[in-house]
Amino acid sequence: YTQGIAATKMDWQKTLHNWQGRISEELDSVVDFWLRHSHDKEYGSVGFLQSFFSKVWMYSRLYRKVPRFQRPELLQAAKAGGEFLLRHARVAPPSQKCAFVLTRDGRPVKIQRTIFSECFYVLGLDELGRATGESHYQREALTMMEAIVHWVREDPSELGRPQLAGAVPHDSMAVPMMLLNLVDQLSEGDVEVANRFKELDNWSAQKILSHLQRNGAAVLENVSEDGKELPGCLGRQQNPGHAIEAGWFLLRCAMRQLNSGLQSQAVDKFMKQPFRSGWDPEHGGLFAFQDVDDFCPTQLEWRMKLWWPHTEAMVAFLMAFAQTQDQELLELFHQVANYTFAKFRDPELAGEWFGYLSQEGQVALTIKGGPFKDLFLGFHSPLPPSLPPWCSCSPWCTLHQGQLVKEPSLGPEWEDTILLSTFHL
Amino acid sequence: YTQGIAATKMDWQKTLHNWQGRISEELDSVVDFWLRHSHDKEYGSVGFLQSFFSKVWMYSRLYRKVPRFQRPELLQAAKAGGEFLLRHARVAPPSQKCAFVLTRDGRPVKIQRTIFSECFYVLGLDELGRATGESHYQREALTMMEAIVHWVREDPSELGRPQLAGAVPHDSMAVPMMLLNLVDQLSEGDVEVANRFKELDNWSAQKILSHLQRNGAAVLENVSEDGKELPGCLGRQQNPGHAIEAGWFLLRCAMRQLNSGLQSQAVDKFMKQPFRSGWDPEHGGLFAFQDVDDFCPTQLEWRMKLWWPHTEAMVAFLMAFAQTQDQELLELFHQVANYTFAKFRDPELAGEWFGYLSQEGQVALTIKGGPFKDLFLGFHSPLPPSLPPWCSCSPWCTLHQGQLVKEPSLGPEWEDTILLSTFHL
Repeated sequence: YTQGIAATKMDWQKTLHNWQGRISEELDSVVDFWLRHSHDKEYGSVGFLQSFFSKVWMYSRLYRKVPRFQRPELLQAAKAGGEFLLRHARVAPPSQKCAFVLTRDGRPVKIQRTIFSECFYVLGLDELGRATGESHYQREALTMMEAIVHWVREDPSELGRPQLAGAVPHDSMAVPMMLLNLVDQLSEGDVEVANRFKELDNWSAQKILSHLQRNGAAVLENVSEDGKELPGCLGRQQNPGHAIEAGWFLLRCAMRQLNSGLQSQAVDKFMKQPFRSGWDPEHGGLFAFQDVDDFCPTQLEWRMKLWWPHTEAMVAFLMAFAQTQDQELLELFHQVANYTFAKFRDPELAGEWFGYLSQEGQVALTIKGGPFKDLFLGFHSPLPPSLPPWCSCSPWCTLHQGQLVKEPSLGPEWEDTILLSTFHL
Repeated sequence: YTQGIAATKMDWQKTLHNWQGRISEELDSVVDFWLRHSHDKEYGSVGFLQSFFSKVWMYSRLYRKVPRFQRPELLQAAKAGGEFLLRHARVAPPSQKCAFVLTRDGRPVKIQRTIFSECFYVLGLDELGRATGESHYQREALTMMEAIVHWVREDPSELGRPQLAGAVPHDSMAVPMMLLNLVDQLSEGDVEVANRFKELDNWSAQKILSHLQRNGAAVLENVSEDGKELPGCLGRQQNPGHAIEAGWFLLRCAMRQLNSGLQSQAVDKFMKQPFRSGWDPEHGGLFAFQDVDDFCPTQLEWRMKLWWPHTEAMVAFLMAFAQTQDQELLELFHQVANYTFAKFRDPELAGEWFGYLSQEGQVALTIKGGPFKDLFLGFHSPLPPSLPPWCSCSPWCTLHQGQLVKEPSLGPEWEDTILLSTFHL
């Protein structure tokens, strides 16, 4: 990563300006790719296939924040998607529980027994309300938010997971991370809402910090409900990309709360440290999973390099650099950005990136979209003003004998369905 | 695979005799490995950790069929396991639904909304009844079998999977495969039981044959309930190891029914053909997943080489050779056996094999056992008399810096738990 090391000696403003150009170009072609390939022509007014929530959010956010995307077709698509959600996402009102996958005409295919579909519903509708100026979308998002908080902090029974006598309760870092992200979304520019969720904001940050274990030397994905390390491989599980993402959410929380101590922890313990321990010294790139004691993880894909930890690390390091002006963060940004652009970008078919590489950095899956990969901007946060939003993600398209083939059909599970939300891995 | 090709010119009896020696040695050291590492010392009388059902079956079958394993400790372990199952496997009697994972003291951790835990319960208890001569185990197995058939053919509601308006019903090949396997187990040497399940035997074989699509050119994992190809990636999904396993079960069915047409289909369409299309021409070994139209599968591990398709293919080809004396099957056996012994066998620590290789054949996970890998004999069928049973599988042990480390603990999900059944992938 000589380019990254050399960059420390360069004028960082010039370097960032260069990256701005490259990222901006990619963003344009990625959005164009999805506009071309993922919209549902047949049910045109309804929206677009796959990963609904995140696209409602994406198109709305692009429209609202990035002048060159202030195009009527983006807002129309977002709004059609939002209306579809309002009509079909909730499976059995008055319950707030949402489907994870719907058919093209709105019938539920799959329901997850978690909070994540509902969280993406909140993100999508709140942002749509902001982009359109129609506040009823935001009111709906806040109503769903109350249900989510109730499930997490009071009573999860509506989620439908049976309580079994032998199941050991544990905290997964994904839940408070998601809540921080929602608070960030909902409270933008709204003091009243920010105050309403201030306690939740603190609670979520503390919950995430409880995953920092071993005297601050490691972020663990799962801990006990009282914040202790768990025995076994579940307790030893690490996901470096997820830790860095948590760092970004914690940093945003520190910014909201003007908490410099939290900022340092976010940057040092949730970004720099997991990046260093999660980076493959042999082939470069971040491992998908690790075991804190260096045992072998049980996930078959643990050695693979996935797109989202890399694009999210770019987001995290730039955001942290913007806050701290710490040159080391710029170096880390360079390291991950160079790897990411060299390996995940499709040199033949600009428009969308590959998502899954072998440990050695070879393309392992040629799909451009899939059950867990679609269009989703990782960058919805204030950035160095010279940098545009940044796209972390990817329709059901595959490369077939060198040709981009739009998947004719995805099977009863996916085909004719609209995947309501995605949650990586 | 010159060794395999050369073998066709050799006296096959001599070749098989050589393989018998190698396989026999492996079986001894694998069983020894599990006896040493997987028994629960603390709850000693209860049984052994992990993959309970399959070990009850394994130990009982070894005791009953292989003279050198007629050792009291195997039967004692099997019986302790069987008694534990009778006490704890069923979660809420009188329902027959079983847990998938239990704690060490018998509390349920996880329940799958499928039939597979219950199927392994049937296998384990029936074989235990045969090994001990205590017929109440077999009666219990038959009672469970009735529940399984009811769920599959009449009413699945007790399995607990919600019926959603948008879900497209489809047939997965795993279900009739499992039923054929159970009929094979239950009807051994019992004309009355064999007659009782004859119609089910035929029904299951026909269901499996409905997965042979495209004028017999491809075995597809999922088809519609009326036996048609499904659109999309679910319909295009192939698993060569699974197809070959289905071939073995179909061949057994053909032997029970003296059906030479079915035998030919089993060998040609479910063994030879999937083996040829599933074999990696570049690096050798069977792919974990494929797409019948050569699109990219969505499973991240699709290129990896897993142990069980290879050991099961050895079983299938030997069994088919024993029936047909077709020399080509012996060649295929050599091809897969040479690869399997060269790549999956741990040259440093005889006793248990690796389970997961990269596409190139390098060890990708060093675990010897895991959520889906443990001791399970793939070979519970009549064989050429000179060949011993053959072991297709692996305790929670990992290799750590060159040392075999027994997993101190596996996390709340697995540690202190007894995984009641395994079903590969």
